[in-house]
Amino acid sequence: MLITELASRCDARAQGGDATQSIHSAADIMSAQAHQVTVLSDGKYKKHLKDTQASACFIAEALIDAEMPAGLTLLVCQDPEISFLNAVKLLHPEPVFKRQVSEHAVLADTATLGYNVHVGPFATIGQNSSVGDSSTVEAGARIGNHVAIGKHCHIHPNAVIYDNSVIGNHVIIHAGAVIGADGFGYKFRDNQHVKVPHVGHVEIEDHVEIGANTCIDRGALGPTRIGAGSKIDNLVQLGHNNIVGRNVIICGQSGISGSCTIEDGAILAGSTGVADHVKIGARAVVMARSGISGDIEPGAQVFGSPAKDRKVAWKELAALAKLPELLQKFKALEARVHKLEE
Amino acid sequence: MLITELASRCDARAQGGDATQSIHSAADIMSAQAHQVTVLSDGKYKKHLKDTQASACFIAEALIDAEMPAGLTLLVCQDPEISFLNAVKLLHPEPVFKRQVSEHAVLADTATLGYNVHVGPFATIGQNSSVGDSSTVEAGARIGNHVAIGKHCHIHPNAVIYDNSVIGNHVIIHAGAVIGADGFGYKFRDNQHVKVPHVGHVEIEDHVEIGANTCIDRGALGPTRIGAGSKIDNLVQLGHNNIVGRNVIICGQSGISGSCTIEDGAILAGSTGVADHVKIGARAVVMARSGISGDIEPGAQVFGSPAKDRKVAWKELAALAKLPELLQKFKALEARVHKLEE
Amino acid sequence: MLITELASRCDARAQGGDATQSIHSAADIMSAQAHQVTVLSDGKYKKHLKDTQASACFIAEALIDAEMPAGLTLLVCQDPEISFLNAVKLLHPEPVFKRQVSEHAVLADTATLGYNVHVGPFATIGQNSSVGDSSTVEAGARIGNHVAIGKHCHIHPNAVIYDNSVIGNHVIIHAGAVIGADGFGYKFRDNQHVKVPHVGHVEIEDHVEIGANTCIDRGALGPTRIGAGSKIDNLVQLGHNNIVGRNVIICGQSGISGSCTIEDGAILAGSTGVADHVKIGARAVVMARSGISGDIEPGAQVFGSPAKDRKVAWKELAALAKLPELLQKFKALEARVHKLEE
Repeated sequence: MLITELASRCDARAQGGDATQSIHSAADIMSAQAHQVTVLSDGKYKKHLKDTQASACFIAEALIDAEMPAGLTLLVCQDPEISFLNAVKLLHPEPVFKRQVSEHAVLADTATLGYNVHVGPFATIGQNSSVGDSSTVEAGARIGNHVAIGKHCHIHPNAVIYDNSVIGNHVIIHAGAVIGADGFGYKFRDNQHVKVPHVGHVEIEDHVEIGANTCIDRGALGPTRIGAGSKIDNLVQLGHNNIVGRNVIICGQSGISGSCTIEDGAILAGSTGVADHVKIGARAVVMARSGISGDIEPGAQVFGSPAKDRKVAWKELAALAKLPELLQKFKALEARVHKLEE
Repeated sequence: MLITELASRCDARAQGGDATQSIHSAADIMSAQAHQVTVLSDGKYKKHLKDTQASACFIAEALIDAEMPAGLTLLVCQDPEISFLNAVKLLHPEPVFKRQVSEHAVLADTATLGYNVHVGPFATIGQNSSVGDSSTVEAGARIGNHVAIGKHCHIHPNAVIYDNSVIGNHVIIHAGAVIGADGFGYKFRDNQHVKVPHVGHVEIEDHVEIGANTCIDRGALGPTRIGAGSKIDNLVQLGHNNIVGRNVIICGQSGISGSCTIEDGAILAGSTGVADHVKIGARAVVMARSGISGDIEPGAQVFGSPAKDRKVAWKELAALAKLPELLQKFKALEARVHKLEE
Repeated sequence: MLITELASRCDARAQGGDATQSIHSAADIMSAQAHQVTVLSDGKYKKHLKDTQASACFIAEALIDAEMPAGLTLLVCQDPEISFLNAVKLLHPEPVFKRQVSEHAVLADTATLGYNVHVGPFATIGQNSSVGDSSTVEAGARIGNHVAIGKHCHIHPNAVIYDNSVIGNHVIIHAGAVIGADGFGYKFRDNQHVKVPHVGHVEIEDHVEIGANTCIDRGALGPTRIGAGSKIDNLVQLGHNNIVGRNVIICGQSGISGSCTIEDGAILAGSTGVADHVKIGARAVVMARSGISGDIEPGAQVFGSPAKDRKVAWKELAALAKLPELLQKFKALEARVHKLEE
């Protein structure tokens, strides 16, 4: 694609260099070569611009100055990240494969498929389940009974969706994810753990993405719910009856026990943990590896285990680094006081 | 089901309200509606009782007082949690599906199946493996060679059981769990990691439940063993040659390195970690996100990383919160001593 | 196998006992019985030697002394661990199964298989993908399109390898591992998380082992790479665009965010976490449960979250244990100073 075309299709204006060159792919600013396009979205990478071998670079007006390399075409735009992201999609289109229902899949006689549904080999779809228009169920995926999957969803290979799950539109579920297994609940009686029946289900709203090998347990009674637009990374554990709001971000290997409420726009960084029956307020940020044992206020930024306000937590950690010295200084001061007392 | 019938089948006595009403399902006390049954098992939720829309509520004698809502039928019983749990099972029976050995499964010619075994589509069962009466092997599950599975087991979709595993009766293995992969062991020689052969196996005793995507590695030599009645949550890593006792609870995302002994009734809360060759005593409790690097006494309750007695750990955390102020106070005290010395 | 033969095939010299006895299997020093071979590789287990029931024991010259049990044949060798490891392989050979391409697998018409390739039932291999000589693709494994798998690889059941992955020779990928799913990246615009397209891929070099249910995301642009000889345990999360060097060890449940560099020979113990864009130097050791937020020097040994030099971290933890007492002592000292001031 010519730089000129790329510019016009990605809301950018070509400036300098040779805009009649063709671009075949996208790369980051340090590894890009001739006939590649890159992006400068953060001023701290600006030093790499003068050495880039890229033919074109998306950039915001504000980052342009006199020292721009002469051979490079700048693609000046309002939102370089989004323009670049769109360029990547244009230059690296998803491969088109033949959509079909594999003769090697097993669909229950009461299962229903919308228009343009793809079902890969060895996938299974249970009784009374439905898959909406243009959705894809890849090889080896397991769709249980009474499962409703909306339109334009992508269920990746070997993902497992248990009975009664309800999945919206434009939902992506990556390989090996398990949606709707029993929650982990027992009552200890007569020297044995009596299993609490889990008769609830999982609800996943529109535009949610669920990472590979992530587990989302169904509710004991009622739903476990993931709100629209929320994104969940790989290897996350989301226990029974959690209610996750809209546009929530949960990063890799985080674990949320059960019956928690995570409000809209909250962010849980990697490997965080949340005790049960906790509420995390809207747009709160839980920093990586933190453990949450009580409610978090909307907008709060917390760190540590148990987590507290991140500034307080950092002050404590800074103080801890001085503690070994303090212990010595204290001994010395005690001796001085003892001398004064004599 | 009529309230009267529900009461008699769940060891309860109906009192008040209209016990001739029918109940169609169970719900928690805050979301229950008419024709639903709920439970009050913990006094702290008692405030919700007066507003509940439920038609009936399991309750212990001791929690009843004069202010009980008039329209509600109390289901008075000795153990409300267990009575309610049984009610949930009665009201939400597991769907009955046709049990069969799918024509789309592949069973080795030397594999043997008991009476009433169900094998789903695309499941595989290897040479010399056996599945006991009334057990279920769901779609896409992989049973290796020389595997013995007992009676009334439920192997969920896409679970993988490697060769030589021995599995008792009434065992549940959730989707995507991997039982019997190689342990992680190498010897570093001549600038390469030489793989330690793992020729042991995994033994899982009766009434064990293994969560989704959990991994239990086989022993290097001899078994990795999970004792009867133990329950393991999702995404747990249990390394080679661990010996887990009876009725042990291991919560989500915990990791036990290898060659550990976890004695009967111990509880490992979520995201705990255990170094190798450690013994955790009977009924010890390891609190969430703790890291265990040495033996834990029976009955101990530990917290932190590295973990110590929980009261000691909490005292230290409380002290840490005062440390930034202490550093300032110390400086002031030093100045006062200096002045006295002049 | 006779002890004499075992000795000669494992670079050892038989000394004492009855070397004409036969050995049928291997066991650890505490559980070994007659006709088993064991090993003493670490002096701290020497006390168990006098009670062992084993018929033979690999041992280094330096650990032999006058008190060796009379009935035991010592297998004296330079490297007891490696000699024993080889003995285990000889005594417990991997079962030979019939290698074939299952009639129940689905291979794209453009997929190519080398000589002696095994493909299990219900495996799938996509368009333009290749599997090299003597490699094994087990039941239910998913090999996407344009995937290159080298020779002597073992892809275990239900593992999933996404499109465009490049896998070297002698690579082991355990059950349920997911190679090449999308990285976790979004840009927040107009109240929604816009998905960053991931058009990169995963490269796995020779002699790498990937644990069960581990996830390795593909690069956004360019590769996520695992260098030759590196070993990754179960349930590890390796994010997009990480570059892992040669002979790196990453233990169970560790998580590496994205765009990190982990240099040759580094060791990440269990449940460690690494923030994005971090460099971990060659042969650095990150101790269990540590969290890395900044670059680590080659050869450094770090602990804690955020991690620092392990000796510094331990000194701080030791000081913390004295803090509750210090707070009390400080109050007492303040009172004494106050008295002096009067």
